[in-house]
Amino acid sequence: MTYCIGLLLDLGLVMIADTRTNAGVDNFSSHRKLHTLANGPERQIFACTSGSLSMSQNVLDLLDEGLPIAEDDGIKRTIATAPSMFRVVQLIGEAVQDVNRTVGKALAESDLSSSVSFLVGGRIGGERPHLYQIYSAGNYIECSPESPFLQIGETKYGKPILDRGIRAGMPLSEAVKVGFLSFDSAMRSNLGVARPLDLLVMPTDREAPLLTRRIEADDEYFNLLSLRWSELLHEATELIPNPPFMRIEGERAIRAVEKG
Amino acid sequence: MTYCIGLLLDLGLVMIADTRTNAGVDNFSSHRKLHTLANGPERQIFACTSGSLSMSQNVLDLLDEGLPIAEDDGIKRTIATAPSMFRVVQLIGEAVQDVNRTVGKALAESDLSSSVSFLVGGRIGGERPHLYQIYSAGNYIECSPESPFLQIGETKYGKPILDRGIRAGMPLSEAVKVGFLSFDSAMRSNLGVARPLDLLVMPTDREAPLLTRRIEADDEYFNLLSLRWSELLHEATELIPNPPFMRIEGERAIRAVEKG
Repeated sequence: MTYCIGLLLDLGLVMIADTRTNAGVDNFSSHRKLHTLANGPERQIFACTSGSLSMSQNVLDLLDEGLPIAEDDGIKRTIATAPSMFRVVQLIGEAVQDVNRTVGKALAESDLSSSVSFLVGGRIGGERPHLYQIYSAGNYIECSPESPFLQIGETKYGKPILDRGIRAGMPLSEAVKVGFLSFDSAMRSNLGVARPLDLLVMPTDREAPLLTRRIEADDEYFNLLSLRWSELLHEATELIPNPPFMRIEGERAIRAVEKG
Repeated sequence: MTYCIGLLLDLGLVMIADTRTNAGVDNFSSHRKLHTLANGPERQIFACTSGSLSMSQNVLDLLDEGLPIAEDDGIKRTIATAPSMFRVVQLIGEAVQDVNRTVGKALAESDLSSSVSFLVGGRIGGERPHLYQIYSAGNYIECSPESPFLQIGETKYGKPILDRGIRAGMPLSEAVKVGFLSFDSAMRSNLGVARPLDLLVMPTDREAPLLTRRIEADDEYFNLLSLRWSELLHEATELIPNPPFMRIEGERAIRAVEKG
């Protein structure tokens, strides 16, 4: 399993990915799922992957080598030379379709899932960061401010907290915190999602530094966040009044007194 | 879609089901999914259903009519005469298998899903309430105190709150409240889960009354719970400190001041 999120905020882009992969419950390992596709002064592009690891690795290798141009004049199309983020995600989608025709077909013949998806975030030149999701068929959607996050992998456990907590106008540090809370829920309910996590923060302000960080299994801040969140949810539950129509325990208590 | 939960606590059994059914997003309607299979002084048995509505209705009709006994002596086996909760869930499982062979087969031939599942809760005579989940194949599992809840339907959005909040020893009114919070999350993230909700509370104490209640779309308590929960989650998020390694906004502020 896998869980990756991308948050596209006014102040910047946040991407978080776990590292756990498994083929059955008896075969767990740790693989990086947040990949650097380009990281120069004029082009910073990152991708999270979920689904078949062999499919996604094959796609990344193909992109690394470059895809042939349509007229086949020998000049490869690469992430490094794509003129816009639109062309970058189109290139990745094409690589996905390529691998579908080869590895995907072979997997289908063995009745194995070849499903793969990507979150792609980044910017070229002076533009604001963009965020896209690329589906198994190679098609894509772009993230928009009305719903400023995208998820791939084990998305459901961690979605309610993002639905409630992520707003395009929020500070980046708050967004990273809410993103971690979303991972905390996903990890609690699915053993297939686990630390270490990889974090990327790309501020819209081009003068602010790019932040990448690995959150290890014993990360002190994440442990604190997880513990405090449990306590706070417990307190929040207690603060909500009980249903007014639930008088059962009250009645039992009264009867016990009357009997006593 | 559908969402149903069963909570098996020391003090009693709680079952909650939504009522929304849909065939595609353009065909929504409301159907009761919490069914009374028996409700006499010596036998109270209730079932929640999810999956194909035509399958589950067929199963319930078959149970209502009674299943033939193995030696076919003409005496029907029914929920009303089954000697134990074990035999009740076995009977329901057999009815599921029956309908799989008829309706399920026809649906499969049209490439339509015939998947169906049940939560069955109740008691016979003086025993404590029991809770079971019956799967599409007609097999079942029983709920146990180590993990005192079962879910069917759109289970993931509402699971983290149950994982954190439901304990076998908790008061029934608290459990109903946490159950409602789980529905609040599921309804927020999936339009296919919606009020009205049906609630059943069966106290272990046989002298306490059985409670059944419909929570309508404008239920005042549920609206309050939903609103307060949003506020409290927001407050809880704010109470958790931001990641110590996130100094980006701080740096931006300092730079802005220096530039100013």
